[in-house]
Amino acid sequence: MRMTALQDKSFDTLYYYCQHESGLRIYVYPFKGFRSTYAVIGTKFGSVNASFIHNGQNVTVPDGTAHYLEHKLFESEEGDAFTQYARTGAAANAYTSFDTTCYLFSCTERFDESLGILFDLIQSPYFTPETVAKEQGIIGQEIKMYDDSPDWRVTMNLLQAMYQNHPINKDIAGTVETIAEITPEILYECYNSYYNLHNMVLCVAGKADPEEVLAIADQKLKPNEPVQTESLFPEEPYEVGQTYIEQALPVSMPMMALGFKEQAGKEYASDKDLVCTSILLEAFAGSASPLYRELLDSKLINSTFGTEYMEGLGYRAVIFEGETTDPEKLAEVLKEAVRRLHKDGISEEAFDNARRCLYGRMARSRDIPSSVATNMINGAFLGRDPFAASVMLQTVTAADVNERLKQQLDPDNCTLSVIKEIEGLIET
Amino acid sequence: MRMTALQDKSFDTLYYYCQHESGLRIYVYPFKGFRSTYAVIGTKFGSVNASFIHNGQNVTVPDGTAHYLEHKLFESEEGDAFTQYARTGAAANAYTSFDTTCYLFSCTERFDESLGILFDLIQSPYFTPETVAKEQGIIGQEIKMYDDSPDWRVTMNLLQAMYQNHPINKDIAGTVETIAEITPEILYECYNSYYNLHNMVLCVAGKADPEEVLAIADQKLKPNEPVQTESLFPEEPYEVGQTYIEQALPVSMPMMALGFKEQAGKEYASDKDLVCTSILLEAFAGSASPLYRELLDSKLINSTFGTEYMEGLGYRAVIFEGETTDPEKLAEVLKEAVRRLHKDGISEEAFDNARRCLYGRMARSRDIPSSVATNMINGAFLGRDPFAASVMLQTVTAADVNERLKQQLDPDNCTLSVIKEIEGLIET
Repeated sequence: MRMTALQDKSFDTLYYYCQHESGLRIYVYPFKGFRSTYAVIGTKFGSVNASFIHNGQNVTVPDGTAHYLEHKLFESEEGDAFTQYARTGAAANAYTSFDTTCYLFSCTERFDESLGILFDLIQSPYFTPETVAKEQGIIGQEIKMYDDSPDWRVTMNLLQAMYQNHPINKDIAGTVETIAEITPEILYECYNSYYNLHNMVLCVAGKADPEEVLAIADQKLKPNEPVQTESLFPEEPYEVGQTYIEQALPVSMPMMALGFKEQAGKEYASDKDLVCTSILLEAFAGSASPLYRELLDSKLINSTFGTEYMEGLGYRAVIFEGETTDPEKLAEVLKEAVRRLHKDGISEEAFDNARRCLYGRMARSRDIPSSVATNMINGAFLGRDPFAASVMLQTVTAADVNERLKQQLDPDNCTLSVIKEIEGLIET
Repeated sequence: MRMTALQDKSFDTLYYYCQHESGLRIYVYPFKGFRSTYAVIGTKFGSVNASFIHNGQNVTVPDGTAHYLEHKLFESEEGDAFTQYARTGAAANAYTSFDTTCYLFSCTERFDESLGILFDLIQSPYFTPETVAKEQGIIGQEIKMYDDSPDWRVTMNLLQAMYQNHPINKDIAGTVETIAEITPEILYECYNSYYNLHNMVLCVAGKADPEEVLAIADQKLKPNEPVQTESLFPEEPYEVGQTYIEQALPVSMPMMALGFKEQAGKEYASDKDLVCTSILLEAFAGSASPLYRELLDSKLINSTFGTEYMEGLGYRAVIFEGETTDPEKLAEVLKEAVRRLHKDGISEEAFDNARRCLYGRMARSRDIPSSVATNMINGAFLGRDPFAASVMLQTVTAADVNERLKQQLDPDNCTLSVIKEIEGLIET
């Protein structure tokens, strides 16, 4: 077999890896007893990668180009990919995030044909001035949808206010103005820079045979010459840009996002740091925490409340988010609780409960092919063991978490983003 | 073994059933190779069951009682169930629908303890005037949330306009006024009528051992004397109550739901009827259909557009729903397409594609413990083979679907529900 068996230490099972002759890195995680398969192929090209060096040349592309390119690849010359997948019975999709673009499908039958469609899709760029222009209406509509979405706006406004220079402060889809500048040449430039198979990863999980995946790759993939593409990021100071930002939107209850900015460098956070942060947030404000119950009983939050850790090259932040009757008050209560947390640390009991909840969540996600494949592809992009976290979870201590806390949740370096009701209107 | 092995014909695997000595019906569907387990226990008591005969007595309870009872059971004397489950690492939840109330958890470890918590939960009603009153604030807030949710309002307004008498026209959670009438006596009455173990079903899917489930049931379940509870429904005419209903809400794009009311009697639809309807809707307006692409290209819909078939005792309706720039026009285009469909029928090619998409979706859902358990519990409530549909899907023909169409999608018996922007306000 041309694939190397790797061990998922946490659950004592094997998965498989090889770099295919074409350049593509391939991971296959077979699930015994499963009937369905999930496959995802992606490249580390998202909205933040708008400036890069390709073959020694500096390139800057309009905001929203990565997302635009995803749309144009998904719609092929032979009609769109949805229609092709409908013939094989697969369910397909694609998404662009801040730092990746991924194309995926799930199926129970005719896996070989669906994987063939996926390979064709990412290998057949076809952009003309007409086809590029035609997409502007559809993406413009999508941008408008996001512009109107309070959930999305509260987060994007937060990032915009927190980050002074880093392109994480810009919308993934760009704006109607920036996408108007996109040309076939720009799309080809990005395609050639980032969609080279040496920059891409395929992950398959569920009912899967590594040999079958390789056979289809052999048949479908055209060998690529490696290219050098390096993304460029501006320097970002530690301090938040603004401490407050608000927008009025047609909502029936105000929303808030409170973001604590953290020092971020040119590297990704370590596995240990990520695990400690997860435990910290679960213990501090998870749905079984005393703080959560207290906020719920006082009606300052409802079930939309949640926490998130955002992290990538040059950005790291903890975000608390949700609907609230009183954004300012909720922010104050949270900051006060953070100050107490810095003084008292988290208790052994809260640590144990949080670790158990997180372990349960991680273990359950191992039964979901899409979770495992997503985890593998993100690990591959970051050069990280995708299954290290659940092992790490067993070895960290409450002291590690309290140590990690020192770098996080600085109540003097945070931003409050508020979505207000449009004034004087929302009376039910 | 005290359990009977049943065959899931579509995938040639076995699952297990018994009626436990306590009265509880238990289904266990073991998944080979899985690490996680999903368990759900429920009773056929939802918002539409507000009038019933219990031990020969006619009873009518305030709207929203089923949902209120779910909240009160989930919050037990020893603190709420979330906290108890946090100790075992399980993720837990509960929901009330139009016709069921269900309590569930998923876990990878300590299944026995979590199942014990679940059994205790549904066997320990404890209602005092104080605890019942305390819940009114929390549920009131939840009602307000739903009242403000355009997604929920567009559907509820539709049902309210379509149904003249059937309680499907009322909100699941009731109103602030109706829940104010709820007393401990009412909750005990409903509990005794519907939470008798003879009326309840437990379904477990995933990593599961039928013997272990039985052992925990033996240990935890107290035998119940059977009770007779019969739900009462008023007569409902074929005709929709109103053809149009609208509400202004703070939305940034209008929404619509177009509902086609169907003749419904005192029985559930047959497996064949349900399968034919699914194929029909997929072929007619699914995301790979020509109509869907046409509507998308003309910008009358966006990706929020979808179809649904709602069905229960006394109600049956097909609903088309989504955001749109022009609700009236979208409704007209859909009705015109329905008229063409009645004239032309669906083609063999559209039938084949739709069947393949649906089969893929059904087959994929067999790898998801929560889908299988939900399917089993709904089947058990309805006295239906939960796995008949995917077999049926192989045997129906395009002619069957076109025959089914004759009872459905009557363009002269439909209601349009519209959520408008609040006038003159939404200018971005």
